[in-house]
This record gives sequence, structure tokens and C-alpha cells, in this order.
Amino acid sequence: MNSERKSSAESGRYAYRGLDRMLHEKARLGILTSLMANPEGLLFADLKTLCQLTDGNLSRHLQVLQEAGLVAIRKGGSGRHSQTLSVLTAEGRERFQAYLVVLEGIVQDAAASEKHRQQHQTESSRLATDWVSVRS
Amino acid sequence: MNSERKSSAESGRYAYRGLDRMLHEKARLGILTSLMANPEGLLFADLKTLCQLTDGNLSRHLQVLQEAGLVAIRKGGSGRHSQTLSVLTAEGRERFQAYLVVLEGIVQDAAASEKHRQQHQTESSRLATDWVSVRS
Repeated sequence: MNSERKSSAESGRYAYRGLDRMLHEKARLGILTSLMANPEGLLFADLKTLCQLTDGNLSRHLQVLQEAGLVAIRKGGSGRHSQTLSVLTAEGRERFQAYLVVLEGIVQDAAASEKHRQQHQTESSRLATDWVSVRS
Repeated sequence: MNSERKSSAESGRYAYRGLDRMLHEKARLGILTSLMANPEGLLFADLKTLCQLTDGNLSRHLQVLQEAGLVAIRKGGSGRHSQTLSVLTAEGRERFQAYLVVLEGIVQDAAASEKHRQQHQTESSRLATDWVSVRS
């Protein structure tokens, strides 16, 4: 069984190197999907509502995304009526789409595994008596 | 256009609340997908190869997953030949599957947005002259 295990341990098979940590952060994922859905851009207040983020959190993540060149920030109006519009840049769209391909791969990997498991369901090796549970 | 924007700002539409942070971490995502693909469990060395993690990183993440009840750790052999087997628990499988449903939703949201964008490609509002770019 050991050799069977080893043959399946293809180096880096599940490393998901393309899973860009800049985009993988939960709140930023929401921001980017919102902006994908609204290519004309979103006002700060609307983005906040869509993603259910606090002012501070949204500001912080938008700044990170802007510094990375993924989101462009535009200001309109003046004084008390000034508003902030966030727009996904072309680079942002490209990187997000590359990230989504990796995400889709994870979903497919897991779905294939689950299908295989259901076809070959066996508890044999899991219950092997030469393995003892350890507590953390 | 403002009202159109507001109507699309459905509260929490892109908050992805089900995106369990415990599972969303990049390295843990690799570990969980590896264990889904190998329901009989994986030896430490194989898991390390599959996920391309260092000993320290893999140990740390396995401990977090074990403490959360998502992965069971079993020891076999003795002395210099002792080995560690990691197995996804039933709870781990269930939570990971719930997480994958959310992940699939993100991929679908983005795909729908991209399709819509290609059908209605317009740069009009993005280039509106009453918005000025700001630098971070």
C-alpha cells in the first residue's frame, strides 16, 4: 500500500501555486467579484453593502488592491459630496481570471475525488489496527 | 446611473459568508484536497510532496486542522520508523464540501459577470470626465 501511496504523491500536485495570495484573501475576493460584476465601477457605499465590510476594512483592502495595480480609484464631486469610484483595471481582470482558473481546478479536483470515493468506498485501511489515533 | 448602481448593491451579495477561513487558507486548501483524493489517508512525507510544504509548515497546519476536528492524525511503527498518517474526518469532509459549494459560486458569479461584460462592453461610464484618477 505504501508504494501505491507514493506513486500518487505527484510532486506539487495539490500545491496550487497559481492561487495568488493577493486575490485569495476572503474580503478581497468579494471586492473583486463585485467589481467584475460591475465593470463600470462601484461607489464606496455600494461596495461596502455588497461585501458587508466596515469602512476601515474596505478602505484598507482597496488600498492594497490599488497599490497592486488591480483596482483603480477615482474621485468625483467635491467637499462633503465627494465620492469614490472603484474600477477593476485590465490587469486586475486578467489576474483575477487566472486565479479563477485555479479555483475551478480545486473544485474539479475535489469533485473527482468525491466521485472516486463513492465508487470505492472502503474503510479498510483507515481502520487498520497498526495505526493509533493521537490527540492534539 | 446612481439608482441603477444602488439596485445592484444587494446587501451581502458578494460577502461569501460561507467561505470558512479555516479552510480558505492556501496551504490548508492543498492539504484538504490531497486528503479528499486519498480517503485512506496520507503519510506525512507524501502530503509534504503533494502540497510542496516545509516540515514546519505542514506540521503547523495539520495541528490546526486536527484541533478543529477536520483531520485525524494516527501514528504507526515505533522509534526511528514511526510514521504519521493524516486522514480527513467525516466532519472535515462535510465542512470542506460546504466550502467548495461557496467556491463554485464565486467561479460562477465571475463567469456570469464576464459573459455579461462581453455582451455589453462599454467604456462609457469608466471614462466619464467627472471622475479623476487618484494615486495611492
